[in-house]
Amino acid sequence: MKVLAIDPGYERLGVAVIEKENGKEKLIFSDTFKTSKEDKFIDRMFQIGREVEKVIEKYHPEFFSIEKLFFNNNQKTATNVSEVRGSLIYIALKNKMKVCEYTPLQIKAAVTGQGRADKKQVMFMIDRLIKIEKEIEYDDEYDAIACGLTFFATYRENNL
Amino acid sequence: MKVLAIDPGYERLGVAVIEKENGKEKLIFSDTFKTSKEDKFIDRMFQIGREVEKVIEKYHPEFFSIEKLFFNNNQKTATNVSEVRGSLIYIALKNKMKVCEYTPLQIKAAVTGQGRADKKQVMFMIDRLIKIEKEIEYDDEYDAIACGLTFFATYRENNL
Repeated sequence: MKVLAIDPGYERLGVAVIEKENGKEKLIFSDTFKTSKEDKFIDRMFQIGREVEKVIEKYHPEFFSIEKLFFNNNQKTATNVSEVRGSLIYIALKNKMKVCEYTPLQIKAAVTGQGRADKKQVMFMIDRLIKIEKEIEYDDEYDAIACGLTFFATYRENNL
Repeated sequence: MKVLAIDPGYERLGVAVIEKENGKEKLIFSDTFKTSKEDKFIDRMFQIGREVEKVIEKYHPEFFSIEKLFFNNNQKTATNVSEVRGSLIYIALKNKMKVCEYTPLQIKAAVTGQGRADKKQVMFMIDRLIKIEKEIEYDDEYDAIACGLTFFATYRENNL
């Protein structure tokens, strides 16, 4: 059982592929995709989609776990992130994946046991829940891993 | 030279394919795609994307013209329409189409000559600019046609 988990964004996008075997989650792949401010937004969105399609082609995950947008006051950013989310969800559905969406609150609660945990606590718990054998430079990648772990936590509870 | 023009939405989506030959725009296809409130949002987004892909496969337009989101106070609607826009722009880019975006103001100005024109004026002018040989039930379809006409008006000006 494999999940592709995404922390959506267009400057940086966190991606993780997590597999569960014999009751244990294993991190198969994680990365932060970056795009350049020099490029037009729709080109950045396209680059991200192509990268995500490559990951799907390589790992064939059956599930797609993506963080729901957290609304802030920057309408432009919110719109752009929504557009990226839309393109990636469409890609997932076209690849016959089951799509699950989680709010930041649900992710924090699933990983730390409480929705008000701060970033440090979340990262502390991620390191205890899953083995990460690489250097992670950006939070986006941690957030994607957390989103994937949330999928498995929810899966146990709900049996989908 | 063919353009696929979209008035984005998820309850109703206006679609038009317009071809320009010998300096004259011709409406080749137009429709309003509807989705059901009974379905989950991501399923509605997927249905819309599939329909748009079918139109692309059938008519092979080289250009993609889509209305830019008009922000209102309904954050949920704005987010959903952005996600639909993102999925469709991704589909267009994957099909190697050139993507052009226009604000409602640009569309009104291109069709009527003034950005403050009301809906009635816009529809009045569309009927004078292009021959519509079918009954149009929804404004969304008119809006898509207007968006396609805007592409050709802009194309003349800017030569892309």
